[in-house]
Amino acid sequence: MTHSIAILGASGYTGAELVRLIAGHPSIEIKALSADRKAGQTMAEVFPHLRHLDLPALVKIEEIDFGQIDLCFCALPHKTSQAVISALPRDLKIVDLSADFRLRDPAAYEKWYGNPHAALELQKEAVYGLTEFYRDEIRSARLVAGTGCNAAAGQFALMPLVKAGVIDLDDIIMDLKAAVSGAGRSLKENLLHAELSEGYHGYSMGGTHRHLGEFDQEFTKAAGRDVRVQLTPHLLPANRGILMTCYVRGDAQEIHDTLAKAYADEPFVLTLPFGEAPSTHHVRGSNFCHVGVVADRLPGRAIVVSAIDNLTKGSSGQALQNANLMLGEDETSGLMLAPIFP
Amino acid sequence: MTHSIAILGASGYTGAELVRLIAGHPSIEIKALSADRKAGQTMAEVFPHLRHLDLPALVKIEEIDFGQIDLCFCALPHKTSQAVISALPRDLKIVDLSADFRLRDPAAYEKWYGNPHAALELQKEAVYGLTEFYRDEIRSARLVAGTGCNAAAGQFALMPLVKAGVIDLDDIIMDLKAAVSGAGRSLKENLLHAELSEGYHGYSMGGTHRHLGEFDQEFTKAAGRDVRVQLTPHLLPANRGILMTCYVRGDAQEIHDTLAKAYADEPFVLTLPFGEAPSTHHVRGSNFCHVGVVADRLPGRAIVVSAIDNLTKGSSGQALQNANLMLGEDETSGLMLAPIFP
Amino acid sequence: MTHSIAILGASGYTGAELVRLIAGHPSIEIKALSADRKAGQTMAEVFPHLRHLDLPALVKIEEIDFGQIDLCFCALPHKTSQAVISALPRDLKIVDLSADFRLRDPAAYEKWYGNPHAALELQKEAVYGLTEFYRDEIRSARLVAGTGCNAAAGQFALMPLVKAGVIDLDDIIMDLKAAVSGAGRSLKENLLHAELSEGYHGYSMGGTHRHLGEFDQEFTKAAGRDVRVQLTPHLLPANRGILMTCYVRGDAQEIHDTLAKAYADEPFVLTLPFGEAPSTHHVRGSNFCHVGVVADRLPGRAIVVSAIDNLTKGSSGQALQNANLMLGEDETSGLMLAPIFP
Amino acid sequence: MTHSIAILGASGYTGAELVRLIAGHPSIEIKALSADRKAGQTMAEVFPHLRHLDLPALVKIEEIDFGQIDLCFCALPHKTSQAVISALPRDLKIVDLSADFRLRDPAAYEKWYGNPHAALELQKEAVYGLTEFYRDEIRSARLVAGTGCNAAAGQFALMPLVKAGVIDLDDIIMDLKAAVSGAGRSLKENLLHAELSEGYHGYSMGGTHRHLGEFDQEFTKAAGRDVRVQLTPHLLPANRGILMTCYVRGDAQEIHDTLAKAYADEPFVLTLPFGEAPSTHHVRGSNFCHVGVVADRLPGRAIVVSAIDNLTKGSSGQALQNANLMLGEDETSGLMLAPIFP
Repeated sequence: MTHSIAILGASGYTGAELVRLIAGHPSIEIKALSADRKAGQTMAEVFPHLRHLDLPALVKIEEIDFGQIDLCFCALPHKTSQAVISALPRDLKIVDLSADFRLRDPAAYEKWYGNPHAALELQKEAVYGLTEFYRDEIRSARLVAGTGCNAAAGQFALMPLVKAGVIDLDDIIMDLKAAVSGAGRSLKENLLHAELSEGYHGYSMGGTHRHLGEFDQEFTKAAGRDVRVQLTPHLLPANRGILMTCYVRGDAQEIHDTLAKAYADEPFVLTLPFGEAPSTHHVRGSNFCHVGVVADRLPGRAIVVSAIDNLTKGSSGQALQNANLMLGEDETSGLMLAPIFP
Repeated sequence: MTHSIAILGASGYTGAELVRLIAGHPSIEIKALSADRKAGQTMAEVFPHLRHLDLPALVKIEEIDFGQIDLCFCALPHKTSQAVISALPRDLKIVDLSADFRLRDPAAYEKWYGNPHAALELQKEAVYGLTEFYRDEIRSARLVAGTGCNAAAGQFALMPLVKAGVIDLDDIIMDLKAAVSGAGRSLKENLLHAELSEGYHGYSMGGTHRHLGEFDQEFTKAAGRDVRVQLTPHLLPANRGILMTCYVRGDAQEIHDTLAKAYADEPFVLTLPFGEAPSTHHVRGSNFCHVGVVADRLPGRAIVVSAIDNLTKGSSGQALQNANLMLGEDETSGLMLAPIFP
Repeated sequence: MTHSIAILGASGYTGAELVRLIAGHPSIEIKALSADRKAGQTMAEVFPHLRHLDLPALVKIEEIDFGQIDLCFCALPHKTSQAVISALPRDLKIVDLSADFRLRDPAAYEKWYGNPHAALELQKEAVYGLTEFYRDEIRSARLVAGTGCNAAAGQFALMPLVKAGVIDLDDIIMDLKAAVSGAGRSLKENLLHAELSEGYHGYSMGGTHRHLGEFDQEFTKAAGRDVRVQLTPHLLPANRGILMTCYVRGDAQEIHDTLAKAYADEPFVLTLPFGEAPSTHHVRGSNFCHVGVVADRLPGRAIVVSAIDNLTKGSSGQALQNANLMLGEDETSGLMLAPIFP
Repeated sequence: MTHSIAILGASGYTGAELVRLIAGHPSIEIKALSADRKAGQTMAEVFPHLRHLDLPALVKIEEIDFGQIDLCFCALPHKTSQAVISALPRDLKIVDLSADFRLRDPAAYEKWYGNPHAALELQKEAVYGLTEFYRDEIRSARLVAGTGCNAAAGQFALMPLVKAGVIDLDDIIMDLKAAVSGAGRSLKENLLHAELSEGYHGYSMGGTHRHLGEFDQEFTKAAGRDVRVQLTPHLLPANRGILMTCYVRGDAQEIHDTLAKAYADEPFVLTLPFGEAPSTHHVRGSNFCHVGVVADRLPGRAIVVSAIDNLTKGSSGQALQNANLMLGEDETSGLMLAPIFP
């Protein structure tokens, strides 16, 4: 059986990545693609690398007949997303890639995103989309909220440790190295090649990065007590890839064993041998997450590192993984592409 | 039916790329991987991006039981390749990715590669592996010689024009922009990141690049007269991608029409609308070739540009495309991966 | 004696590069910096790499007292530049980095830039700023028009050959590889890191690049007959560097000798040994131009390659070189910085 | 007065960087350059970006007449360096860029470098070369040991804080982002462009990086008690630049004030306004160090970040700064070059 899907906001990087992945999916067909400002153009004009595919032209959202759509991917900016989804049929399955439905607490949403939430009843319904930790809920969900790409990387590194209580919850430091496509196809001076190539720097430092809202929510929920991590993002001269270096206190071997056990049956999250650390080089273009643990020379300290491709496992791959569950398909369908190296 | 294959020289980039592509092939199974110096290691140690795959460990060639192999990919250096293939069973199907069997004329081989050919009878048997132009011969071949990656890019741009006689055969200038992975995983100072990043320069200039042997042979054969092109390669700070800018004399519109017609039914070679030129960005990681034609302001001159990924269409993707034909599989099987962008 | 200068349009890359160079100049002092939209900010806010310098804050042009200024660098966009310069004191020495005063023929200006010229009397007065070929005129000029960066690179490769008549003037093909900073600090999608890194493509192909107006004018003037070259630009993933590969007909050795002789006494233009070609790696951050000549295997054909840093020799370095002449300073003052490698 | 210097090991990146800097020095003249394997070649052959300079050819060390040399820069690998320096005249001023004389304790040297020290009496004489903290000792030293580039970056971030006791000395975490030229011009697979570009990963993790020996020694000495930091290096796709992100406990404002005061009169170390963090983009190619402090949302925690160019302030620029002191020159002579951006 073939499922019909639509992608709203198909002219951004996550939209294009969804098309790339779905192009290889055996039972999903793209029926509609929207892009407000670029409506009327073909996908080949907006993303020439998809030129070989037979795709519907870009249209405005209101031109889409959602009656023929089984599931809708929403790759719109936050705030726009909640307005658009509010107006969609209430029985339409939706995977939202924006930040709008990630946070359960309206006050937290407003704190991190600056505007009150305008679709609170949808927010209640939404399931947090980190497949490995919400698999059952996602399977039966109507509306799944894709996670922040950095939030995904950090949770893959630490969530089983927080749950198992094998690390000190009051001393978690996350040093994030992020590639530029996480910022989208937006025209900002700091995203220009000339500003970014051959150098690096921190940004959103000191506890101001919005993905902290997700860490606070999910780690607190998992621990059954308040957890507040320290997160310092850095922007690196690369297009894809998140490396999350986590400084934790605990027994390194126990930490490794906990992760290895938690991910033993996961198709996409791989725990490296003890003492090895991952590289973004080795997950690029794929839905895989590599996690590694190294003991520090200082007793009682360990470094946990996770690596993902922000556009795939961090965003569009995760979205397809969730859609597979929601549509009753094999979770890995269309997603077993090997990483590209070099 | 599943075909069993071996890859000799699996520790190089083209070997890894073969594994990446075959991992998604529905009816090919990797039975053996060889790597002389790295025999005994696992593929995950040599190429951690393939860690999720269940692959045989690297062995020495002599450890492989070729009786159970249907087809063997040979990704060894030239000269080594002819020696190794000479010792393989004579009924084993082989796709060779080296330069050893590309040139029909032993003297030409010796001229370009510096050593006399040591397997002349195999050389006679070999079919030149540019699928789009030798499809029928490849289907029934036992030994197929994969082409040079740059030679492939140049022939996609010009071969239909040479055959049709719509360009001046005495005035063909090819300006090649090549990424670094074409040089393989070899330890050379000029391939270091610090030597290459943020700059560019010509190399093998003045008619000394070995792929000229292939252009001379193939264009001369197609034209039925001697054709000698001018080729100037440049090394660029990128890992994958060949852009071949060809300066030709002829009617640009006729040139475009000739290419569009020649490639109309090709699954992997796409002719862009007249006046548009391709980008390596839009074929990265894929088996596609984009070809474009632009008319110059100077009457009677046109620019023909082709773009491929050197590791895929230029090498391992081409090899799998040929293997598909030799094994009676659909030519595109395992190869319809969309390019990765960004 | 110390000269006082102003830089109009200091918030762009060429403005910053002027400040970088002048910071090391023994007898030039920066008295005023303008930036329309960023007026009120400090230079350290706009360009933190200049933070260690004691610089005047950015102001609007009308706030500058030009009575205290000996020479004004104008790093504004074309069209804006002619309007601004028209309003400046008529006895103020000016080095303009825009395209507004490069072309002598008003019709040519309008053809290439799309608008009629609004300061024709200034255009008449302007001297074309390629120092090596207009040294005497520049020394006594009031208004010098900095050249296009690509136009500079191409003329360094070919001008002595055009003058000497040692190449076929009807068959000149220039394949340009340009870095991204040549496009300025402008917010365009194709200048984003994610769009540019790891790939390359042609642009302004077919004879539409504006710097052709300069080649037409200067080569025609030098040859005493109409010369029309073919120019195909390519955008590369690097921040600085122009490599101009020129395909010409003539005797390679004679071509080399002609260039070597022409540049024998030039402080900034170096002719490489016969058979060697330059790299942008080796001129980065400097005012040097490297020129090389290679003979092709096809008799009567040669490849002439030049390499410059587009922001230095192609723009701000050239501007300072001209300013030195106009101010009676040593031409090389402040400009002998060695290139940065790696 | 002009000082005559020699550079031993001039064919590596730090050797070339020394030449680049000294080329602009008003009172230092390069009299001899050595390079064992490349003896006989010119510097222009080994480093074409220095082609415009009039330099002595590369020779073997034994060919140098040290009688005419006032100061010798030794840019050789560790272990080689101690052997070579042992054989040099005992009254020759030496700035050593290797690791051989950085550690005061022979046992510490052997622990981190794996071999017993073979020139213990020289080791005793050596002064640790971090100019800002050993200025007086360096001025009168005969043998100065250039610091590790990462060790320099980390000490600029933290040394005044360790001395002032404003941070918790038992909880210092340093996350290092390092560019590839720090590994030198060595032929290693992980330094190839294809292995490094577009990705990143940790290395020498868990407390095994050799520069920890310097941190242990210097911080312990400054604090008057044992200090052991946690250091996790990451290799990034860039040629120059060290970003050291330090996670410390203390009052952020007090930390900032302490640094601002310590560096108030330093010509090369600049403290950014409170709340701002530095970028390697803004120190590239220069001898400047930018230091910034940001308060975290978690009370009592701060992030201190330093940025330097590893080849300049981290190595050759530091070496020249020390040489200036040893020769009685102005400390900043030849070193006030502004950073290159973009």
